[in-house]
Amino acid sequence: MHKLEHVLPADIEKTSFRMIGEELAERKIEVAPELAPVIYRVIHTTADFEYAETMAFSGNVMQQALDIFSRGPLIVTDTTMVYSGINKRALEALGGEARCFIADPEIAAEAKARGVTRSTAAMERAMREERPTVFAVGNAPTALISLYEGIQKGYRPALVIGVPVGFVNVVQAKEMIMETDVPWIVNRGRKGGSNVAAAVCNAILYQLGDDPRF
Amino acid sequence: MHKLEHVLPADIEKTSFRMIGEELAERKIEVAPELAPVIYRVIHTTADFEYAETMAFSGNVMQQALDIFSRGPLIVTDTTMVYSGINKRALEALGGEARCFIADPEIAAEAKARGVTRSTAAMERAMREERPTVFAVGNAPTALISLYEGIQKGYRPALVIGVPVGFVNVVQAKEMIMETDVPWIVNRGRKGGSNVAAAVCNAILYQLGDDPRF
Repeated sequence: MHKLEHVLPADIEKTSFRMIGEELAERKIEVAPELAPVIYRVIHTTADFEYAETMAFSGNVMQQALDIFSRGPLIVTDTTMVYSGINKRALEALGGEARCFIADPEIAAEAKARGVTRSTAAMERAMREERPTVFAVGNAPTALISLYEGIQKGYRPALVIGVPVGFVNVVQAKEMIMETDVPWIVNRGRKGGSNVAAAVCNAILYQLGDDPRF
Repeated sequence: MHKLEHVLPADIEKTSFRMIGEELAERKIEVAPELAPVIYRVIHTTADFEYAETMAFSGNVMQQALDIFSRGPLIVTDTTMVYSGINKRALEALGGEARCFIADPEIAAEAKARGVTRSTAAMERAMREERPTVFAVGNAPTALISLYEGIQKGYRPALVIGVPVGFVNVVQAKEMIMETDVPWIVNRGRKGGSNVAAAVCNAILYQLGDDPRF
């Protein structure tokens, strides 16, 4: 009745990426080879080709990202959904670690004691880490704004993946990060999400390790 | 420099939903009142208005969904990201529980022993539950296909939230579920995702409980 395509489970991802490449060509959208792993994986996770035209990258960021990830960074996420979506096995194989401070009971206590939001307390906690730190923000523009304020005060994240989604202060928060001189990967506009933040992390991870994939 | 809107954290969601309503009106898209909580929350989580035209609902499904959720169902998710995104506090307040069997070591062992995929073993495990069960599928079309096969053999899920995303067998798997006579909420086409699956669950949860919100 419904013609299911007979694709082996192991080949589904490869087939999907080939289809994405063909459809980008049909739409006459060109993607720079070094950005393709990130852009293809974001489209793979959203089925939304608009990302090919809105994803933005600071100069030389892919080389910087591969370098940072190869040394096993701390990845701080704004939500547990982004944390869940990151391939921890691949990250740990490189010596890295993912954390979502907002879920820590001590952060909730600190936020309450200081009269700030949990998001702010969590970002300030992350900026106290001495390890090279990647920020993967898929939901909260307030997290990006706290990070921007830290950067203005001299804090230097190793990489900012800024892809929150939404209607209030999302566009502005992304533009603020894009004006800094830290390495960033941002999706311009209102779209993004926890799935997109995790996809960007995984796209970088999958180019490293023993068995690189697109 | 960047004009941030001064919206109190507690009002961001309300402001976003008002903006979504205004933009739907501008686009002359009408949303049935009983479906609005789900459709608005999916747009809120994706910033993608296409969902207003592709989300599909079986007859009377919202009334059935509210009835099922009010009695505290088991919600089975296909991935840990969907599990992460569901508001467990709201679900547990109604006496419900969320599970993601695919992450269980015993499911991995069963899949290996039987020579089936983990996704299939996890869905078959879920269909052995005697409690009323809601399925929230945000990623794996194979999970929906296993569920369809179970339904053909007489299994009756309480509700199927079928919103996997992707390029291979995703459209077909959704159409198969839409032809069954079980209650379903599906997003037609290739789009969907773990964020969308969690948003649908939360939209239903937030209409119940002591402090209903849109």
